[in-house]
Amino acid sequence: MSLQWWQQGCQPLDLVARSKAQARQLQLTKPAGSLGQLEQLAIQLAAMQGSQRPSIERLWISIFAGDHGVVAEGVSAFPQAVTGQMLRNFVGGGAAISVLARQLGATLEVLDLGTAVPLEPLPGVLHLHLGAGTQNFLQGPAMTLAQLLIALQAGQASVQRARAAGSQLFIGGEMGIGNTTAATALACQLLECPALDLVGPGTGLDSAGVAHKAAVIDAALALHRPAIGAPIEALQRLGGFEIAALSGAYLACAQQGIPALVDGFICSVAALLAVRLNPACRDWLLFAHRGAEPGHQRVLQALQAEPLLDLGLRLGEGSGAALAVPLLQLACSLHNQMATFAEAAVAERPA
Amino acid sequence: MSLQWWQQGCQPLDLVARSKAQARQLQLTKPAGSLGQLEQLAIQLAAMQGSQRPSIERLWISIFAGDHGVVAEGVSAFPQAVTGQMLRNFVGGGAAISVLARQLGATLEVLDLGTAVPLEPLPGVLHLHLGAGTQNFLQGPAMTLAQLLIALQAGQASVQRARAAGSQLFIGGEMGIGNTTAATALACQLLECPALDLVGPGTGLDSAGVAHKAAVIDAALALHRPAIGAPIEALQRLGGFEIAALSGAYLACAQQGIPALVDGFICSVAALLAVRLNPACRDWLLFAHRGAEPGHQRVLQALQAEPLLDLGLRLGEGSGAALAVPLLQLACSLHNQMATFAEAAVAERPA
Repeated sequence: MSLQWWQQGCQPLDLVARSKAQARQLQLTKPAGSLGQLEQLAIQLAAMQGSQRPSIERLWISIFAGDHGVVAEGVSAFPQAVTGQMLRNFVGGGAAISVLARQLGATLEVLDLGTAVPLEPLPGVLHLHLGAGTQNFLQGPAMTLAQLLIALQAGQASVQRARAAGSQLFIGGEMGIGNTTAATALACQLLECPALDLVGPGTGLDSAGVAHKAAVIDAALALHRPAIGAPIEALQRLGGFEIAALSGAYLACAQQGIPALVDGFICSVAALLAVRLNPACRDWLLFAHRGAEPGHQRVLQALQAEPLLDLGLRLGEGSGAALAVPLLQLACSLHNQMATFAEAAVAERPA
Repeated sequence: MSLQWWQQGCQPLDLVARSKAQARQLQLTKPAGSLGQLEQLAIQLAAMQGSQRPSIERLWISIFAGDHGVVAEGVSAFPQAVTGQMLRNFVGGGAAISVLARQLGATLEVLDLGTAVPLEPLPGVLHLHLGAGTQNFLQGPAMTLAQLLIALQAGQASVQRARAAGSQLFIGGEMGIGNTTAATALACQLLECPALDLVGPGTGLDSAGVAHKAAVIDAALALHRPAIGAPIEALQRLGGFEIAALSGAYLACAQQGIPALVDGFICSVAALLAVRLNPACRDWLLFAHRGAEPGHQRVLQALQAEPLLDLGLRLGEGSGAALAVPLLQLACSLHNQMATFAEAAVAERPA
């Protein structure tokens, strides 16, 4: 059997550029290590871009939206109509990610992978409509194999458009009422733990709601676990359209050599799945923030991720990743523009 | 006895603007609280600026540099000549804060309060030169009363210039070989704890160096504690020119109604001192980051501060505050530009 596209090789990091960037960091007029995480960040970006002087100017943001059949079990505080309403808000310019994309000068692409409530065509939205949301995974697999493959390819296609536009950073965002339930189920499957280890309030469940959500997830795990042999099967049975698209996007970023800045809990679960599908993809992932959803910390640990921000965010839409972009840009500016000890005639050695 | 200038009243926050901003946050198209710390940040800025729609566009950065007599005790990894060399680097554009100020479009002002090694006049540097650094506080008070008063006024004068320029945010930075020793001594005095509770490596001491630094600080505390009755006396005996200037600046910000964004350990100690001198000043302080210096966490706790970043920074120069500026700006953009539920026709209530 031939390899699926997502199992194909990833771009290697440029180790020469990394070494040069490491050496440069030690020559800049500051105590070694005093810029903390920003030093490693600049070095990582140098290795990804194959340049001793990395740059993050052209930004691409793709928002993947889709509904979830499991919402029938009462796992969300919001009605499913909100998924479509937020698609309108994304292209209308009033959503958080719309504001952030505008402020950052980023290209914002919005994809409708399938809403439960039918939508008229929205100008500025790419309607792929794989179905009226996923199926309720308490009753069977969330997706058909065909839906899964199209969702993965949708992520890949976004990255191809980002690359064609010369983007230096890819941010994926998500919108989908109920998607913390799907993401938690998927993470529990990948990390082999019960729902209570990871479950949280999502957009605003109370404690009874969280307990019910945990019971729904555990029931889904009991139903599907015996049939799941490989990570891709976990994605088909427990995932969502937007989660699969994000996984596909992260894999494509690694294959095409574009740094991906991962947003919150749901994006991090998609990233974990991408790394399980193709471990070399990990090299191309940067992590923006530690969110408020309790499972996020565990998923970040499994990915050995050190996120940049910890602001108690739990919005999604790629908003946390967008908020971290200035840190990437300033890390590059510091790395590229600071004087060396020799250039500035500053004493380098301890007294 | 009449009040000193720093004991005069601070500007009150605008509670009406705060209430309006709080109400607006609840109407924006996102789950309530989902933007985490950025929601409170926008509300705080609204209360400071007296506007439901705050804005942080015009930025002012003042760097206060000064040397420390206690360096004679061998408490720093770098020679004192570096203080003057870095003054040149600040105005030459090669220091971290120079790069950050340029990227952010901030005004950068550099003040020489007194270096140990004589300096020729540097174009772009305000030379106040209160002395060849402070005195070694193991042998007596660090400053004379006259030096203390001039240093406090230097900070106040910087804020007056910032205000005249229409600045919406004041960032103070510091440079001074040995100033983590002075800041730690001052914090130990204010927090009534021994050096070992707060002491750290500064710019790069090894463990033996840190132990020696702690012994020096404890000896200084033993010498001065009996004579210190008020916080201002702690500043005179254990502080530094740049620390006093920062305290003066934070106090002036509160009196003139300009939000101050506090940088790392040394700036936070200056802020703690400012709050002890005039508690109402606390309302005008925002905290940029939790730095790597171990004492910083304790000082932040004493100030009930919730910093925005935690990146392992330990550079000073105001650099950590500058790195947090985009978060303030984006918090304002989100607050001002996001659509409300009504404007976007998005369902607000849980299903």
